[in-house]
Amino acid sequence: MATETIADLGAQPATDRRLSLDEVTALARRILLSNGVSAAQAEPIVRTVTAAERDECRSHGLYRLLTYIRSIRLGQAKGNAEPTLHDDGGALVRVEGYRGFAPLAFDRGRALLVEKARRNGIAALVIRDCHHNSALWAEVEPLAAEDGIAAIAFNPTHSWVAPAGGSRPLFGTNPIAFSWPRPNGEPFVFDFATSAVARGEMELHRRGGRPIPSGWAVDAAGQTTTDAAAGLAGAMLPFGGYKGTGIQIMIELLAGAMIGDAMSYQSSDADAGHGGVPLHGELIIAFDPARFRAGREGDPLADAEGLFERFGAQPGARLPSERRYAARRRTVVEGVLVPRPLHDELVALADAGE
Amino acid sequence: MATETIADLGAQPATDRRLSLDEVTALARRILLSNGVSAAQAEPIVRTVTAAERDECRSHGLYRLLTYIRSIRLGQAKGNAEPTLHDDGGALVRVEGYRGFAPLAFDRGRALLVEKARRNGIAALVIRDCHHNSALWAEVEPLAAEDGIAAIAFNPTHSWVAPAGGSRPLFGTNPIAFSWPRPNGEPFVFDFATSAVARGEMELHRRGGRPIPSGWAVDAAGQTTTDAAAGLAGAMLPFGGYKGTGIQIMIELLAGAMIGDAMSYQSSDADAGHGGVPLHGELIIAFDPARFRAGREGDPLADAEGLFERFGAQPGARLPSERRYAARRRTVVEGVLVPRPLHDELVALADAGE
Repeated sequence: MATETIADLGAQPATDRRLSLDEVTALARRILLSNGVSAAQAEPIVRTVTAAERDECRSHGLYRLLTYIRSIRLGQAKGNAEPTLHDDGGALVRVEGYRGFAPLAFDRGRALLVEKARRNGIAALVIRDCHHNSALWAEVEPLAAEDGIAAIAFNPTHSWVAPAGGSRPLFGTNPIAFSWPRPNGEPFVFDFATSAVARGEMELHRRGGRPIPSGWAVDAAGQTTTDAAAGLAGAMLPFGGYKGTGIQIMIELLAGAMIGDAMSYQSSDADAGHGGVPLHGELIIAFDPARFRAGREGDPLADAEGLFERFGAQPGARLPSERRYAARRRTVVEGVLVPRPLHDELVALADAGE
Repeated sequence: MATETIADLGAQPATDRRLSLDEVTALARRILLSNGVSAAQAEPIVRTVTAAERDECRSHGLYRLLTYIRSIRLGQAKGNAEPTLHDDGGALVRVEGYRGFAPLAFDRGRALLVEKARRNGIAALVIRDCHHNSALWAEVEPLAAEDGIAAIAFNPTHSWVAPAGGSRPLFGTNPIAFSWPRPNGEPFVFDFATSAVARGEMELHRRGGRPIPSGWAVDAAGQTTTDAAAGLAGAMLPFGGYKGTGIQIMIELLAGAMIGDAMSYQSSDADAGHGGVPLHGELIIAFDPARFRAGREGDPLADAEGLFERFGAQPGARLPSERRYAARRRTVVEGVLVPRPLHDELVALADAGE
């Protein structure tokens, strides 16, 4: 979805609506507020949905509001939850989400996390008991861009992914994100599922009747499959084979068992096949690069640019965040295109609430 | 190499020597001390070499002593370096290695790292200016097994690996290791290169004249190759495609630029084609699981066992550390087999020094 360009979409003017980013913001806000989401919960969601549209990460843009509202209507998420901030001493910050959404929980913990990272060199933010419909890059990128803090974030999801060599779902798609501040103001950021592909990509192939590449999933009997429906009924596979499995386990342990929230299989067990959205925690590790330079001259950020220069000189290699930044420069001027059926559905959702 | 079993090797009694683990220890110690390595530097190397033989991780066992001694003879490593410990305040510990070997540097920092992890919940150990001939699992496993601390460790190496889509070496094989304490005393541990395979595996294929699988490397023209020599002359590839590239970049930034030590390309530049061993830093992040449980009942380690139980119930899935622990139970009783040519070379190395 994020690979479509404005030009591609521009070829179908009759079926798309062009919205300015301000209009995206206004529509998102109207949908959330009219459907019982508190202003406190709504505003950080509005911000992240707008940022996703701006960066042409459409799966986390306006489309995602359908999931937010559905999870409230099903009684899974609490649209007016009031997250609480806890200083757990030392380098630890914790936010209890009370089944609200992650963007507000993150906002509540952010300032103390940054303060503790600066004071201690390294610090961690634990978020518990939240619905994570937002993307992790939307959390770690501002830490780098605005606070000069490098960060790693990850979380479990539902058990959809088999271990390498296994055949049954046990791990989540467990995204991991990383950010590093750059002098040009556009941090290096990656954010990816530790499954071979995002679950949404599997769904798109199923709906489109397209075969999936070997290596994405196994069927219910544990056999490699190129049938998306069979793969969704079986188990997805990790990225990078047994190495990806190792990283998936690390995420389950640190951002599940360690922080006292659900591992992916527990999130799925709690859902008991109702098809609800995952409810779980998240772990963010924050680094103050300057603090790690003790005893040695030089600026970590300036030094890091040497790596990016050499990376940029390799034809064919692309930094993970480049496409998002390119889209951002475009959409701020041109606005974004929203498929007409999605736009109609969103307007109806806003009207229904009012 | 680690996949050989005692039974396999036992079929070649004429060409192998069986050593008890005490004999491994004694031989390793004699080689190091007789070649000018100080007792302080030698003892932690002896311990890690013995642990690697015990776990049948032979590439980090006695064989690796050849590299240790060569790097001293070439004037790259300082066999009598005295690492210094620095409390950088907050949650940061630093050890300056002065071109010595990593095992002693790690030992010097360990107690303060553990103390800071317990006090702050999370802490970091920066190691600078060391030769890393040892495996990272040998550092993180004891943290979990003996101190109850979960840990992530990584480091750059030399620039051997191209970014996904690129064609020229830029990143190291950049190992990442993780440990998690388990009630049975055998921590969950993974430790792998973030290249598609370890560089030693490429070398083994080249020496054996065997083709390498597609996906391991590109030739000097950037084309996929199944020729190991062409791949070594070109560039290795990351594990997991662009996702693995993201993790490789993260390791370069955090354990290179951030901590004020060499990134892989700088380690290679400093070597200037002399074929020396990498000289660089390392970052270890330590977590006290109990501290992350603030405000919620239960024991993180007990909870985590639920994941391992379900993992163990999947035929075909294998925990990364299982094979090492199985070997350990066997070799403690039976000793280890050392190929005769290697044993002869090691004894000669010890004698030459005396």
